[in-house]
Amino acid sequence: MSTSKQAVTARRGRPGYDQQTVLQIAVDVFNRHGYEATSMGILAENLGISKSAIYHHVPSKEDLLRLALDEALGGLEGVWADGRSKDGSAVQRLSFVIKAILRVLATRLPYVTLLLRLRGNTDMEQAALARRRDFDHRLADLVRMAQAEGSVRGDIDPRLISRLVFGTINSIVEWYKPGGTLSVDELITNVYQIIARGMYSDGDD
Amino acid sequence: MSTSKQAVTARRGRPGYDQQTVLQIAVDVFNRHGYEATSMGILAENLGISKSAIYHHVPSKEDLLRLALDEALGGLEGVWADGRSKDGSAVQRLSFVIKAILRVLATRLPYVTLLLRLRGNTDMEQAALARRRDFDHRLADLVRMAQAEGSVRGDIDPRLISRLVFGTINSIVEWYKPGGTLSVDELITNVYQIIARGMYSDGDD
Repeated sequence: MSTSKQAVTARRGRPGYDQQTVLQIAVDVFNRHGYEATSMGILAENLGISKSAIYHHVPSKEDLLRLALDEALGGLEGVWADGRSKDGSAVQRLSFVIKAILRVLATRLPYVTLLLRLRGNTDMEQAALARRRDFDHRLADLVRMAQAEGSVRGDIDPRLISRLVFGTINSIVEWYKPGGTLSVDELITNVYQIIARGMYSDGDD
Repeated sequence: MSTSKQAVTARRGRPGYDQQTVLQIAVDVFNRHGYEATSMGILAENLGISKSAIYHHVPSKEDLLRLALDEALGGLEGVWADGRSKDGSAVQRLSFVIKAILRVLATRLPYVTLLLRLRGNTDMEQAALARRRDFDHRLADLVRMAQAEGSVRGDIDPRLISRLVFGTINSIVEWYKPGGTLSVDELITNVYQIIARGMYSDGDD
C-alpha cells in the first residue's frame, strides 16, 4: 500500500475480496439469474462494489465464466488423472470414477451447476461443452469395458447406461444442499448404491 | 371467411397456422434461446409472420408459456388421474407411474423440457412449479408406501430415492430424440429396468 495506485485499488475493492470470492459470488448470481441475463451492473450490485472495481479483479464477464467452468471441468478431469481410474478391473475403475464424480459435484456444486446449464452460445462455451463431451465418452467407454467383463448388465446399450448414470448424478445439483443434513459421504454412498444396483449384472451394491 | 375481419386475419397468418402450431414453434424457440431471452420479435421471425399476427393467436408471450406448461403438467397430472396409479400394490402402482411419466416425457418432450428449465421468475411460473412439487410429493409418498410394503429397499431415504428416480427420468430431455433409433417403447423399457433394479428390494426388473 505504498504507492498511490495501490491505495486507489484498495479503496475501490472491499477488504478481503480476492478473485476467488468475486468468482464465488458471480457464479451464484449466474445460477440465479442465468449467465446471459446477468450484466456487470447486476454483478457489481451483488458484490456491493462498483463496476470498475470488478474490472480490477477480472477483465470481463466471460473471464468469470471461463474461471468458473475451469473449476468444474478441472475437478472432473482430475478424476481421470487419478491412478485409480486406470488400475484394476473395469468395474473397480467404474466404481472409483462414479464416486469421484459425485464428490466433485457435491464439493464444487455451483460451478458444475453453471456447466450443466451452459447452452453453447459462444466459442468459449462450445469449448467447455467439448471437454464435457470428452468426459462423457470416457465414462461410456468404461461402461462398455465393464460390460465386456460381464460386470455391467449386457442387455442395455452402454451409451444409454452411461447417459442414465450421468443423468442420475447430475440431477443432484437440483436439490443437494452442501452443509445440510445429508453429508457428502452419505450422498456418495447412497447415490452410488442406487446407480450400482441398477447397472451391475448381479444386482449387488 | 365471410366477414372482412376474418379476411384480414387470414391474410395476416399463414395457411395452416393454428394456435397449436404457433405453440410448438414458440416452445422450440424458448428451449433454444431461453424463455426470458426470447422476444415477440424473435418469435415472429421464427414463425415467419408479423408480430401483430402472433397476437391474433395468443395475447402475450406469457400466454404461450402458460399453454406450454399446461401441455407438460396436464400430461403429468393425467398419470395420477389414471386408475392404474390407484389400484393394486404400491409397487404395481409405482411401476405404472414411472412408465407413464416416461411416456409423457418422451411424447411431450419440448413442453417438459421447458417446464424443467423454469426458474420461477413470475407468479405464473411459481404456480407451475407448485404443481410440479405436488407431483414430486405424490411420487415420494408412493415410494414410501412401497418401502413399507417391503418392495422398495428400506436402507435409503424415500425422498432421496424419489429424487434420484426423477433425476434419472428427467435427464432424458437432454439427449432423447423422438423419431430416432430408440423408440419410445424401448426407451421406457430400458430406463424402467435400470431404475427398477436400482430401487427395488430384490434387485429384480
